[in-house]
Amino acid sequence: MSYVHGYQLQETERLTDQARTLVDLLHGDTHFPAGSRVLEAGCGVGAQTVTLARRSPLARFTAFDISNDSLAEARRRIEQARLANVELLWADLADLPFAPASFDHVFVCFVLEHLAQPGAVLATLGRLLKPGGSITVIEGDHGTVCFHPESDAARAAIACQVELQRRAGGNALIGRTLQPLLRDAGFADVRVSPRMVYADASRPSWVDGFTRKTFNAMIEGVRAPALAAGLATAEGFDAGLRDLQRTAEADGVFCYTFFKAVGRRLNTSTDPR
Amino acid sequence: MSYVHGYQLQETERLTDQARTLVDLLHGDTHFPAGSRVLEAGCGVGAQTVTLARRSPLARFTAFDISNDSLAEARRRIEQARLANVELLWADLADLPFAPASFDHVFVCFVLEHLAQPGAVLATLGRLLKPGGSITVIEGDHGTVCFHPESDAARAAIACQVELQRRAGGNALIGRTLQPLLRDAGFADVRVSPRMVYADASRPSWVDGFTRKTFNAMIEGVRAPALAAGLATAEGFDAGLRDLQRTAEADGVFCYTFFKAVGRRLNTSTDPR
Repeated sequence: MSYVHGYQLQETERLTDQARTLVDLLHGDTHFPAGSRVLEAGCGVGAQTVTLARRSPLARFTAFDISNDSLAEARRRIEQARLANVELLWADLADLPFAPASFDHVFVCFVLEHLAQPGAVLATLGRLLKPGGSITVIEGDHGTVCFHPESDAARAAIACQVELQRRAGGNALIGRTLQPLLRDAGFADVRVSPRMVYADASRPSWVDGFTRKTFNAMIEGVRAPALAAGLATAEGFDAGLRDLQRTAEADGVFCYTFFKAVGRRLNTSTDPR
Repeated sequence: MSYVHGYQLQETERLTDQARTLVDLLHGDTHFPAGSRVLEAGCGVGAQTVTLARRSPLARFTAFDISNDSLAEARRRIEQARLANVELLWADLADLPFAPASFDHVFVCFVLEHLAQPGAVLATLGRLLKPGGSITVIEGDHGTVCFHPESDAARAAIACQVELQRRAGGNALIGRTLQPLLRDAGFADVRVSPRMVYADASRPSWVDGFTRKTFNAMIEGVRAPALAAGLATAEGFDAGLRDLQRTAEADGVFCYTFFKAVGRRLNTSTDPR
């Protein structure tokens, strides 16, 4: 699997900014009970792991990723945060080393968007849940982007990111599909709640933390691969970037929506499909 | 001004459905103090008026519209709701019969989207506010539409509505611009909060009340004018309608965002621009 956002230091900084700015919006309503066993699938550099483990200090977290570089960074952060309730390990989503029904909760954030078979992975994760256990999934959706001033060039630059992610086997428009995805993977009581980031001059920390340092930085990060793939000209892509930065100015507006879904493994002997 | 949605009975029913389903999402946080004078600009058939007047029974409302048919329907509703705190009258936004600084609050909902000069109208309404008085503006934005399954035909049908509204002098993408619009019209402390409608099978009243009876009914309502204007073929438009209805099925998802803005007239001798 090729990870469209790359693994550079700049990317690490982007993910940290993203996590810092979005923590309350995305995770403010996620708490795990004392003693519960929680699996975080695809923890990356641990941006979400630290937040989750801090907010539920009496839950026990197992977090894995397929990138050793990301895991090293996650380990550094967890040590820095002096968290004793997180176990980190290397694992591949396609061949997980966990026993069936061994977790009370599974947490998946910004992972499904990179997978060719997100439904199959969800079904696999469901089998790791105890009956009655629950899953939380968070994904963005680039089709929810809405900004002022409107710009065809900015739309085209975003479309390059969507297309590159598609060619890498992923789906940057996955957020809106969480309800049918989870239901088809066998989860019950699926509830989706959208979380919209709205950034204008009256909310400067969102303009800086999200519009500039998260979204626009992400689009800027695919400039080279987009040009290499012939998806845009340098002039066209840079015009799009300028127009995206324009939405972070005093009279600009930028909106983006994340989707958070919670579902439950049925309390029966039947495995999720 | 030509009103793109038309004034037929079907339209009245659509606006009633819309108001009933959206009341809490849009107006749940709007309350006017006892004794305050509130102006509702462009009240239409009174869909919002009844809600506002019920929620703030000790405030005094003045609501106006340019359509006598709409006013007659609004009058019927207000009498049916036994509301004694609403005065209805005919007036033209371009030539308002009110004295400057005669209201504590102005309320404008689903009106600016139909105006060629929304900023000038906002400035005019601002002059009707007492210093320190506030304005509340609510508008949709068709650019925020996000659905599953995705469909180019559905997008094209929605684009017909946007184009017809543009040709009628309006802007169906106005919601996202409320922050700069209000600030440029001289209002201070402008705060915008997006209100997203999210409809999937787990929320059947939203699927029926919003996806089907509000949004899809609105797009269906522009079929004849869109064909007459040569913006679509019958086959193309109907394919778009079918795909929109498809998003209301068991595995479908539909999202739409309204923007609510509140601003204040500065407490100085300087009028808003």
